[in-house]
Amino acid sequence: MKKTIITISREFGSGGRTIGKNVAEKLGIPCYDKELIEELAQTTGFSKKYIEEQGEYAPTKSPFSYAFVGRNIDGMSVGDYLWNEQRKKILELAEKESFVIVGRCADYILREREDVLNVFVHAPVAERAKRIVEVYGETAVAPEKRLRDKDKKRAINYHYYTEQEWGRAQNYHLTLDSSAFGIEGCVDMICNIVKRENEN
Amino acid sequence: MKKTIITISREFGSGGRTIGKNVAEKLGIPCYDKELIEELAQTTGFSKKYIEEQGEYAPTKSPFSYAFVGRNIDGMSVGDYLWNEQRKKILELAEKESFVIVGRCADYILREREDVLNVFVHAPVAERAKRIVEVYGETAVAPEKRLRDKDKKRAINYHYYTEQEWGRAQNYHLTLDSSAFGIEGCVDMICNIVKRENEN
Repeated sequence: MKKTIITISREFGSGGRTIGKNVAEKLGIPCYDKELIEELAQTTGFSKKYIEEQGEYAPTKSPFSYAFVGRNIDGMSVGDYLWNEQRKKILELAEKESFVIVGRCADYILREREDVLNVFVHAPVAERAKRIVEVYGETAVAPEKRLRDKDKKRAINYHYYTEQEWGRAQNYHLTLDSSAFGIEGCVDMICNIVKRENEN
Repeated sequence: MKKTIITISREFGSGGRTIGKNVAEKLGIPCYDKELIEELAQTTGFSKKYIEEQGEYAPTKSPFSYAFVGRNIDGMSVGDYLWNEQRKKILELAEKESFVIVGRCADYILREREDVLNVFVHAPVAERAKRIVEVYGETAVAPEKRLRDKDKKRAINYHYYTEQEWGRAQNYHLTLDSSAFGIEGCVDMICNIVKRENEN
């Protein structure tokens, strides 16, 4: 296989993470997501949960946001510092191997490269609500509200670090409604693109 | 083949219309685009050029826009009247046959149906600029400006009639960057989805 990097951005509950894992498995390449967080936890000393939260949910651009951040590193908020560390790690990985990466604004971070396929996965609210209850279980908060909150946070995080609009078709080579094609349908489509690319 | 309707929305110069025509040819079904305009010209008596312009470029929502419209039909502006006639025609066609339809807000008009695949085709500005010069020739206006103007008009038209955002991934089952996959690559992907659907 030619060196290929596949970035997967996804709405919460759309199955995007599963699609990423399955594509990686089929192509025999690693899938990065939480793994990056674990590595960062080791190198920075922060807890995994803390990094995960900082990674998905950027602060607002309010001038007061820094005031409420407990720690500062090199003049950056901890969130910005971790984002930057993660960014460096992603750029480094891209130099040496093929992989799938889920989230982390990787489409934006790797925008200068020509060996990257950027995919966005979404699905209607009703389908995603059903899925998050199946996968993560019920909580006191209605699934529709959990979706809205998490999507909103991801959109803000993406916009904060990329100045681009999350979910805008033009940011991606391919966007897929997973409810129309099914998880395996999406996996096949992505793998076929990579196979076709390798034939040329 | 099961009855299937494929709607193609597209950025100007992305090759979306060609993709639509080629998909229709491969599947052996009609492709509607200008054909609808010809039919409307016959039934309404307006010129084809006039209908085409009204169809692509909606008035603004300014309360003054009606004042400047020369004719009114059934209390509607001519643009709204034609849009509505076109809408009725599209719904009628969907009842009886498989087809590909390019533009015309057909994704929105057919939103209640379950046998519709909605596709949006886009490409980076530089690629589209090259393509419109190849396909439509040079004009006094720079290709980048022609793209911006036409995309803007389509976005306004789409929003006026659908209250949705043009090019938002969530409005479509599939969005494709034609510069990444090529015209024939996009055609194959769409045809494979239809074939897969027919096997199930």
